[in-house]
Amino acid sequence: MSSENILIIGGGPGGLEAAKGIAELGGRVILVEQRDRLGGTPDSAHYAALTHNFMEAEEVMGKVIAAISDHPNVEIRPGSRVVSLQGSAGEFRLTLESPRGRETVEAGAIIVCTGFDHFDPGQETQMYGYYEFDDVITLTDAEAMLKAKNFVRPSNGQVPERVCFIQCVGSRDRRIGNEYCSKVCCGIASKQAIEIRQLLPQAKVFIFYIDMRMYGYWEQEIYWPAQEKYKVQYIRGIVSEVLKKGDKLIIRGEDTTMGRPMEVTMDVVILSVGMVPSKGTKEVAKILGLPQDKYGFIKTAEGGLDTVSTPVEGIFVAGAAAGPKDLDDTISMAGAAAMKALGTVRRKAQLELRS
Amino acid sequence: MSSENILIIGGGPGGLEAAKGIAELGGRVILVEQRDRLGGTPDSAHYAALTHNFMEAEEVMGKVIAAISDHPNVEIRPGSRVVSLQGSAGEFRLTLESPRGRETVEAGAIIVCTGFDHFDPGQETQMYGYYEFDDVITLTDAEAMLKAKNFVRPSNGQVPERVCFIQCVGSRDRRIGNEYCSKVCCGIASKQAIEIRQLLPQAKVFIFYIDMRMYGYWEQEIYWPAQEKYKVQYIRGIVSEVLKKGDKLIIRGEDTTMGRPMEVTMDVVILSVGMVPSKGTKEVAKILGLPQDKYGFIKTAEGGLDTVSTPVEGIFVAGAAAGPKDLDDTISMAGAAAMKALGTVRRKAQLELRS
Repeated sequence: MSSENILIIGGGPGGLEAAKGIAELGGRVILVEQRDRLGGTPDSAHYAALTHNFMEAEEVMGKVIAAISDHPNVEIRPGSRVVSLQGSAGEFRLTLESPRGRETVEAGAIIVCTGFDHFDPGQETQMYGYYEFDDVITLTDAEAMLKAKNFVRPSNGQVPERVCFIQCVGSRDRRIGNEYCSKVCCGIASKQAIEIRQLLPQAKVFIFYIDMRMYGYWEQEIYWPAQEKYKVQYIRGIVSEVLKKGDKLIIRGEDTTMGRPMEVTMDVVILSVGMVPSKGTKEVAKILGLPQDKYGFIKTAEGGLDTVSTPVEGIFVAGAAAGPKDLDDTISMAGAAAMKALGTVRRKAQLELRS
Repeated sequence: MSSENILIIGGGPGGLEAAKGIAELGGRVILVEQRDRLGGTPDSAHYAALTHNFMEAEEVMGKVIAAISDHPNVEIRPGSRVVSLQGSAGEFRLTLESPRGRETVEAGAIIVCTGFDHFDPGQETQMYGYYEFDDVITLTDAEAMLKAKNFVRPSNGQVPERVCFIQCVGSRDRRIGNEYCSKVCCGIASKQAIEIRQLLPQAKVFIFYIDMRMYGYWEQEIYWPAQEKYKVQYIRGIVSEVLKKGDKLIIRGEDTTMGRPMEVTMDVVILSVGMVPSKGTKEVAKILGLPQDKYGFIKTAEGGLDTVSTPVEGIFVAGAAAGPKDLDDTISMAGAAAMKALGTVRRKAQLELRS
């Protein structure tokens, strides 16, 4: 007996959008979220504004959460995780675990929206002194300060005069095995650079980069205004190390446009950390039997034009669980996955009627 | 009386994927295509291999076309165009024109998948001598030669020894009013560079660029192999002009990494032309009353996380009709638009039942 439920794992932007789409088409959703609240990374990592258009993250996510929270077709299971899977497309049986105990649910199809983690610069590798110097922070730390409208030097609470971003931390880096580009860090760093300049008009802001990957409309929406209106200084250069001198930081590296070594003083250094698969993504991949690529992201099916099907029939993936994705990618993939999951459920029900 | 039809305009990758999704969910599709055959730009522009994975464009598109061609829920109208629209979401009435005459069709929702055109370097502006020199070609011209496995100098039919790509032709260019980045040209040029090196192992291949926007997995799938395995030479530089000297071409500009002027000889120069809205996109936007952005692409609704809704209820857009998009974007958007269009049709039908 096939189930018409669609189980969605992850209550971030992708999972919420998929749930909304399915519910609006009359499908039934069970939404499993390991945290006690919905909203995913924009919520847990305290995102301030989202690209495009610098929309307030909290407001936007609030709307999406509201759209599904009282929908009769959506059952939400906060504080829960999937611990086992049996059966196949049309009649999956999953065990969920929560502080309330274990339960078994049935689902005709599954959508994995377990997202990414921000790259950790490493307590052992001490990349750029993140764990050593208080004033070396990550995009995530900076985002939380920007959300609080209080951007200061963590070491002493003072307003910084010179702030820089170092791009490609944890991305495009063969030594650590992350060869891929994380896609969003150029856009996010540039967005934050604008926000810092808005908040602190006296501060000088620099971005050290290899290539500025401001693809599509980010170019004229963010990159040009950052340079022209907000005077953010983009320097094509490789930063090799961050040192401390008195209560300041020193950046050492090479300015590749000028072809000369550089050594500059900063008050705050922001590491533009990339995406790695979240712990949840790696766990869920194992439990559901989904192949992962060499980085640990979930593989999508090959050999055709399909961005959301996994090699396992009836299981789909949306957003950064499948590799580095921006928010537009995630939202579009969520819609596509919702449609294909509904298609699976209805096809299985029809086959059953005929047999 | 609301209609359950969904009218899709455009039979390229986006339109075909949307049609397939809707039909599989039991919805009814009318697919309007102005050409006599389906397949869109990959077909009309003779695409060779697609990213990712260098899949044969013809084979991949063939599969998608086959999936909908005999589907009982999909009516295909080749050689047709939409010439007028009346009514509103749930009960649109559209007039179609074809060599067979005019007809009126009803639809509950509409999906616009009218795509892009390749930027034309201009007969008047004579950008880089495209209309002046036979051996200056575009990505599209190169793609057609690669598909025929016969990459030669157009001027004399000989095998070229030195080939270069000039990036950002028609993109990131304020003088011509196209400030945006076209998103795919870095990836396509690098793919073609690899294909040229595979076909002509003796040829030297150069790519002149501002930033290599090999976002996400293009980085390790294409950019690294291009450099390491296929020895494509990437030069960060601005090409200011292309001249002729004897039967060779001369590229003049500045190598910005070396900080010096450059003048190099080439046999073939490939202009990496960007995306502009297709004639069809601009026409359809006017006929359907859809707002366009300053470049002529169709605007999507603002103020939330939604990649496919237009400001007109019941009308959605997928793919490069909405701005520069890669193939993954287009396929994901098509799924999302299909879902939302079905949602509109069903919601309108329910409202009608209740009233």
